[in-house]
Formats: sequence, structure tokens, C-alpha cells
Amino acid sequence: MPDSDMSFWGWGYTEKFPDEAERDELATRMETMLGFPERPRLDPPTLSDVSIPESSVSVPDHLAGVCSTATEDRIRHTYGSGYRDLVRGFHGDFSSAPDVVAEPADGDEVRAVLDWATEAAIAVVPYGGGTSVVAGVECDPEGDGSGYAGVCSLDLREMDQVLEVDAHSRTARIQAGATGPEINDQLREHDLQLRHYPQSYEFSTLGGWIATRAGGHFATVYTHIDDFVENVRMLTPSGEFESRRLPASGAGPDPNRLVLGSEGALGVITEGWLRVQPRPSYRARATVRFSDFEAAVGATREIVQARLYPANCRLLDSREAMLNEVAMDGSHVLVLGFESVDHPVDDDLARALEIAEDHGGNVSGDPSYEGPHLDTDDAGDDRGEEAGEWRSAFFEAPYKFNAMVSLGVIAETFETAVTWDQFDTLHEQITEQVTEVMREECGAGFLSCRFTHVYPDGPAPYYTLLAPADVGRELEQWREIKATASDVIEEHGGTITHHHAVGRTHREWYEEESPDDFRDALQAAKARLDPAAIMNPGALLEER
Amino acid sequence: MPDSDMSFWGWGYTEKFPDEAERDELATRMETMLGFPERPRLDPPTLSDVSIPESSVSVPDHLAGVCSTATEDRIRHTYGSGYRDLVRGFHGDFSSAPDVVAEPADGDEVRAVLDWATEAAIAVVPYGGGTSVVAGVECDPEGDGSGYAGVCSLDLREMDQVLEVDAHSRTARIQAGATGPEINDQLREHDLQLRHYPQSYEFSTLGGWIATRAGGHFATVYTHIDDFVENVRMLTPSGEFESRRLPASGAGPDPNRLVLGSEGALGVITEGWLRVQPRPSYRARATVRFSDFEAAVGATREIVQARLYPANCRLLDSREAMLNEVAMDGSHVLVLGFESVDHPVDDDLARALEIAEDHGGNVSGDPSYEGPHLDTDDAGDDRGEEAGEWRSAFFEAPYKFNAMVSLGVIAETFETAVTWDQFDTLHEQITEQVTEVMREECGAGFLSCRFTHVYPDGPAPYYTLLAPADVGRELEQWREIKATASDVIEEHGGTITHHHAVGRTHREWYEEESPDDFRDALQAAKARLDPAAIMNPGALLEER
Repeated sequence: MPDSDMSFWGWGYTEKFPDEAERDELATRMETMLGFPERPRLDPPTLSDVSIPESSVSVPDHLAGVCSTATEDRIRHTYGSGYRDLVRGFHGDFSSAPDVVAEPADGDEVRAVLDWATEAAIAVVPYGGGTSVVAGVECDPEGDGSGYAGVCSLDLREMDQVLEVDAHSRTARIQAGATGPEINDQLREHDLQLRHYPQSYEFSTLGGWIATRAGGHFATVYTHIDDFVENVRMLTPSGEFESRRLPASGAGPDPNRLVLGSEGALGVITEGWLRVQPRPSYRARATVRFSDFEAAVGATREIVQARLYPANCRLLDSREAMLNEVAMDGSHVLVLGFESVDHPVDDDLARALEIAEDHGGNVSGDPSYEGPHLDTDDAGDDRGEEAGEWRSAFFEAPYKFNAMVSLGVIAETFETAVTWDQFDTLHEQITEQVTEVMREECGAGFLSCRFTHVYPDGPAPYYTLLAPADVGRELEQWREIKATASDVIEEHGGTITHHHAVGRTHREWYEEESPDDFRDALQAAKARLDPAAIMNPGALLEER
Repeated sequence: MPDSDMSFWGWGYTEKFPDEAERDELATRMETMLGFPERPRLDPPTLSDVSIPESSVSVPDHLAGVCSTATEDRIRHTYGSGYRDLVRGFHGDFSSAPDVVAEPADGDEVRAVLDWATEAAIAVVPYGGGTSVVAGVECDPEGDGSGYAGVCSLDLREMDQVLEVDAHSRTARIQAGATGPEINDQLREHDLQLRHYPQSYEFSTLGGWIATRAGGHFATVYTHIDDFVENVRMLTPSGEFESRRLPASGAGPDPNRLVLGSEGALGVITEGWLRVQPRPSYRARATVRFSDFEAAVGATREIVQARLYPANCRLLDSREAMLNEVAMDGSHVLVLGFESVDHPVDDDLARALEIAEDHGGNVSGDPSYEGPHLDTDDAGDDRGEEAGEWRSAFFEAPYKFNAMVSLGVIAETFETAVTWDQFDTLHEQITEQVTEVMREECGAGFLSCRFTHVYPDGPAPYYTLLAPADVGRELEQWREIKATASDVIEEHGGTITHHHAVGRTHREWYEEESPDDFRDALQAAKARLDPAAIMNPGALLEER
């Protein structure tokens, strides 16, 4: 994927930016269905319109082959893919561009960049797919007193190889800069897959997943990247650290767990051994419609507490189902899927459907049963386990967000996880308060909910919001809405993030949620691994 | 369980120490079956024979109700339950007795003890069931220069309550000093169970399980206490720290994971919310015999890689099967069990048996299928999911170890986990080298192996060894054998402990296995939480 094919300001491939007709249709739908006032049709920016400040850094000779200060490289590494990023990019504001972009080809080059940055007091921001929605890859050190001489975006994507495969143990050693498709392409010859499908799968990287504790596509059991990591290697400014490859261990706190979620603040993840799997051989799927949301929630809870381990157990509320054109009749839809590498899963689906029906659900059409051989050679057809409409909507959704920005629509998602006993209140308060703040700030607003993951002790609800913005004031309006949503989550026992990480955007709420003494302990660990505090300052932890 | 009923030097209840006839039978079996030279029959010590040094600590008035310096209390808190502990206890050596024993009734009293200990420079050793086999609860600060004015054993067992139950989310808030039976007794009225059954279940405590990352009885999926912890509260010398109750979160490194495995070196775990479950309704069990060990290993690997999620998948090699009287014909035995709170698991067992038969296994007798209602009200009947002989042997085994000490037999267990690709070599080397060192040191020896847990990427083999000791030289001989076993594990890619923790016994090998920079980061975190370094010095981390 050459950079030139990629949008420099928004999600994904430039050519996939929706054309005028599509955008017209989208705007009309929002005007008629959601009651938004007439939306503008703004043109996306061109690269030549953008100007950025001069780089404040000069690259030493020995890193000339690794580092670039070219304007386009710096523009392309300024932002992640959050709404705030898209808005600033769309309006041509790249003022927080890094001073230099490093593209190391191996661990030695990473080491060389870290050594230089430590000596030159340059902040280093590890960069994978650039898909962070929490300002995790954007560094604008606070204040003049920060003492940083500049910012280096450290792009790991040259390191994209599957280095070794141990098919007997079903594990593979993979470099941190490999994207989802790159990993699966290389594993294909071994008839193995990683089967980790975050929505950013196409562009995000293994290192990014580990650094942010990414949630995969699967609803239950092994879905977080945390579960897939057998070992990990991280280069830190003070040295390096590689945990032993082990299926399990009881020897002290798990070293992998310090790296998982470290968000580039402790070091640069360069590779790891990951647990992989064969393609599934059997699959069973169905969708169930509910007229009552509470009943649908009850069914979902009972299914996960029955430990049936569905691969997919995605509850869409009626607005989410409508937004994604899965159901237009006001139903709430539960998408269920089971899969196995070894044995039929028909009975598991049958039992889940029985539970759903006990709660008043109606199975839509006939359940689908496949196996013992699935035609899943094409990774593109095998990213999800959903009813077709929903699956393609899932991976295409981020492109819609590009279009929304061009139509003056605030489009944002936020997610949490909460225990079942607190879910009803949390959901009610989010619905009420976020709808209210959109009305206050924007005059109207749309909010929908789905469960992306479910656990025996609680769901992970994921919210999508749309609101008509005043172009030019979008970010002020967004900030109010985001703050309200985050406040409600914290107040009602949720987490500020189930799988989007903390970055800079969520730090204020993360500090409310996490124990102060734990963050202090983490800062102490960071001071040991990164004594000059060059690693991703301001992400996850307060700058010190 | 009043202290007076408990053995002061060995495992469990005094009255369960095997009588003369049983010990005779055991000795005869070892002499005839294992070819050991004639064994002595030594008498266990009596409490009145034991003398210990004076306490070097005087308890301040405000802690008079919490702390005791009584000789018997100090003797009873000197050791854990490892072979080395039993030998020293049996021979009446309690020279490393703590100076004072604290038994706080709540968090405030824990706080008061920590404050006093910090001020008075007294080392604090958190104590749960006293079942550590790695010297995790025994503190003998190194050298005179350590600067500690004394050692306080902090016994948490007064804090034994289930404080709250959230049946909707299937979680319960439990105090750290509660033992396995105490937890299940209190959960019974809610029709819930923790279903975490380490071999020490009867005496060990929740806090101990969390501090040591205990492995439960289940072979796959949710078995480690790590998986059950929704939140945890830890009092540290510098403050306290309670994570939020969450089903999952992607906000930074998981705070629970810093506490899990911290072995009392960071603070005192006082309570946590734990994921609980109803009793299972369905169960299916069978045992399979194999004449070939490699074939049995292959079957086990394929079953776990098929993700059938057996509750029990315990492979006993022929010697282990014989030792436990499960099979006397030289077969290797795979004990398989499935259970569910919701649905029949017959098909899962059938598929696992199919795989086992494909690898040359012979199913012993008829598989047992139970449900939809199991008669499991008595926790005593429901601790395991095994064929009967094996189940009772599992919980009675530690009593046999008491007897072994009295017969001058070295009885030790050690466990590891390793990826499948390295297992064959590791197992071969352990068998060869440990057998050899027993022969050198003791003239004979017996070694058996079982898998306690299995993972898609590797097994957790658990070894039991028996060797005839020269009474008086047992610990020298033991040390050589233990060192050989540990060296082989480290050399061949295993972990020094799958579920027995590091403590003081394993520290040397833990330091080989874990990344130096990780331990440094942990020391930095400790320095922040425990600035006077009073918490369990020498356990897990080097004394500083």
C-alpha cells in the first residue's frame, strides 16, 4: 500500500472517498430520516494546499537513510483517525506535524533512532497504522517548558514480516509493523490465521494492537490481543526486554501485561510470538429480532453466562440496526455466530437460539450451518462472522466518517464495558445526556448502541453518534459532547475505553478511573525504562 | 478451623497424620515397588520440644489486640508447606520464626500494622493459608546489614467474609483471608460457587491465590485466578489502591495484573470482586488408557487445539497413574471431563474420545454422563471432576508428604509450562537428569509426570519425585535435586513455575527467565509503593 494511494487527511484509500452522488444520498438521508438541517457539501483538501511549520530537527548523517523531514511524510504522520483528526485534516490544519519521520527496517535501526532521540531530547511517537482514535500517535508536547527539541514519528511499517512459524504449537513470530492482511497473507501458506479482526484490521498493525490492548472481532473467550500474545519484545530507551515464550506462567506479575496497553510510553514494541489458528471448518449463524431492548439484553446476558462461547454475539439496538440497514422495522437485532476448527457447532447455536426465543426473540429466516469445509480462502470474505450487510458495513464504516466530515456532521463513536448490574442505568444516562448535549450544542443528534463484546460479568456497549455541526465550530461542539459521554461513563462505573485505548483524548477520565497509586507505580517503571521521558509524552500518562 | 487442630510442622489436620500401620504400608511399598533401602520410622515432633529465639520486637499498646508474640503463634507462622519446610519443622528447627504475628480483623488494622512496621523497620510477610511451597511466607532477612528490626507475619485469615454478591453479574466481593471452603460455604446460599480448586483449596486463601497467580483445577479456559479477578484492593505501605470493577478494559496496562503475582512484595491484598458461577448442571467424564506416552501427548494436544474446552484434561504418565493407583498395568491415563451450567456436554466428550482413539487410546469402561441436575451440594464431593480414585488422591496427597518426611523420603513436586515444540526435549531431559541426580545423591529415586493444565500452545507438566534420604542430610540432597530440575527447566525453555509462584526458593531461576529490565521496572514500582522496602523482602524480588 504505497502512501500515495492513501488519504492524507482521512481514513483509508483516497479513491474510496465517497463520490458526490453517495454523499448526496447520505446527506439526504440525514436530513430526512434524522431531521438534520440542510447539510453543506464541502470539498476535501488537496495535499498542495497544506502548509506546515519548518522542521526543528536536523537528521544526523548516520540516520539519513532512516529518517525523513519531507513535508509530505510529516503531514502523513500528523494524525490518527479520530473525528478530531479528520476535522483538522479536512480543514488543512496540520500544525502539530512531527518534525521528522523515521522508518526503521529492523531493531538495530529502532535502537539507533532511540539513542539519537534520547541524546537530542526528541520525543518519539511510535506509529503503526495511524488508526488511533484517541490522539495516541499525535504528539504536541505541552508548553514551551517541555524541553523537547522536536518530535519524531517512528513508523514501524517496514517491519512487516512473519519471521517464524511453529505450527506444532500454533504460534508465529511476527514483526510489530505488519498489518492485519500482511499477517494473514504470510500465514496462509501455513494454513494458519491470527483471527484478530479489529475494525481497523486493514491498516492497523500488530504493534499497535499490543500497545493499545486491541479488542478483536470475536465476542467472547479469546478476542483481546492480550490473549494471543505468547511473548513480546520491546526496545526501550534504556535497553530492551523480551519475555520468554510460554503458554502460561505463575512467575511474578506477567511481563507481557506491562507491555500490553503501554501505548508507546515505555518503549517500542518490535515483535512477538502470537498464538495462531487454522481456518475454521464449521460455522453456524443466525440473527434474532427483538421488539424489546431489555429483553434482548437479557437474552444476550444469559447466552454469555451459559458459556456457549459464541464467536459473534453482537446486539444492535434498533437505531444501530437501521443505521447499518440490517433491520428497518424498529427491531433490535442479535447477530449470533459460532465457529470451530474441529467440530460442528450447530447445537451451540440451537441452544443460544432457544435462550433468545425464551426472551421473546424471533429468529430471522433460517439459521445457516456450514462445514466441514468452508470456502474462506479469501481473507476479504472471511473477516467477520456476521450477516452479510452488517459485515461489510463494519469494515466500510470508517469511510462513511470521511464523508460525514465533508457534510458538516459530527460523527463519533465511544465504547465502554460495565458490569451487568450497572448497565441499565449507564445506558439510560448515556442515552439521555448525550442526546441532550447534542440537542443543546447542535440542535439535533442521533445515538445508537451495539454490544461489540460480552462477558459473563458484563457487556461492552459501543455507541455511535451523529450530529449536525456548525462548520468551523465542529471541534468545540464535539468537545462538549465527548466530555458529557465520558463523564457519564465514569460516573456510572464504566471504563473510559474498552478497546480504543487512552491516548491523549481519554487521559483526563483515565486518571479518574485508574488508581492513583497504580499510575504512580507505572510512572516509576517508565522512569526506569525511559529516563529521559522521550517515549510518547502525554499519551496514557501525564508528561513529567 | 482452630489452630490447635492443625499440624504445627506439616500439612493440614494433626489427626490426619497417617498412623503407624499406614506409614508401614507406605514404607513397604517404597521398599518393594521402588526398590528403596529400608526406611526409618521417625516420630513426629511435639510442640513442647520446640524452642525458638526470643522475639526482637515489642508490640506497641495500640496494636496489642492485633499482634501476638506468643511462642506457639510464632511457631505456627514460621513456614509454608514445601518439603524443605516440612523437614525443618519435623526436626524441630523453627529458628526463622517471625518475631510477631498480626491478625488484623479489617483494613484499618492492616493499615495500622503497616504504619507501625514502616516506622519500626519491621519486615512484613503476608500470610494466608501457609501453604506456600516456595518459601513465600518465610522471611529470614539476608545478613545483619539488612536493617530490619524484626519480622511480622501478617495473617489475613480473620478477614474471611463474602461481603457482597451481585448475582446478576455473577460476581462476589470477597475478603482476602477466606479459604476455599469458607468462600463456597458463604456463596452456597446464593447458589453460586467460585469453582477455583487448587490442591491447597482446603486451607489456602483468596489473597494467597491472587498474590501467587494460583492455577485452579480446570484444565483449560478460565482456570487461573487471574481470570476470576474483576477487581482487587491492595493496601501498600505508601497508600492503597483499588481497581475499578470492570468486565474488561483497554485503558492502559491492567492494574489487576500488577497485583496478580506480586507475592506480597508490593502490599497486602485485602479483598476483591471475583467472577463466580452457578454449580454445573451437566457433566460428562471418561478415562482413556494409552500404551504409548507420545501418543497420549499427541491426543492431549489435539484435544486442546480443537478448542473443546474440557474442564479436565489431565494426562498421567504410567508412573503417576501407578503412584495414585489409577492404573497398575503400565498404561498412561488421560482423565477427561466436561461440565456446563447450561447444556449437555456429551458431544464434546464424544469428540474428545474420538481424537483420543485416533491416537491409539482405549476408553476405560463406559463414559459417565450426568445432568440436567447434579447432586453436588456437598462441596466435598464436588471439588474435582475426576475419576474417583484420582480425585480423592489429589486432595489427600499433601498428607502423604507428611508421612514421607517421617520415613526419611524426599518428596517433592515441581511444575512448569512449555510450548509443544519444546516439550519432548524438556521432558526427556528432566526424566534423564533428575533420575540421575536422585541416583547420585540418594542411590535411587522415582519420578512421575502429569499434565495439570493444557493450552493450545503447550502443556503444563507437573512432576512428582520420591527418593530415599539420609536423615539429617535431607536438605542437602534435596537442594541438589531441586537445582538440577530447575536448571533443566530454564535451559529448555520452560518457566520455573506454572502455579507455585517464585517465593524465595525459585528466585535464582526466575531471575534467569524474566527480563532484567522488567524486574528493574517492578523494583521501581515497588520503591514507589513500599519506600521502606518492608514488604516480604527477598520474595520474588531481590532484597534492596
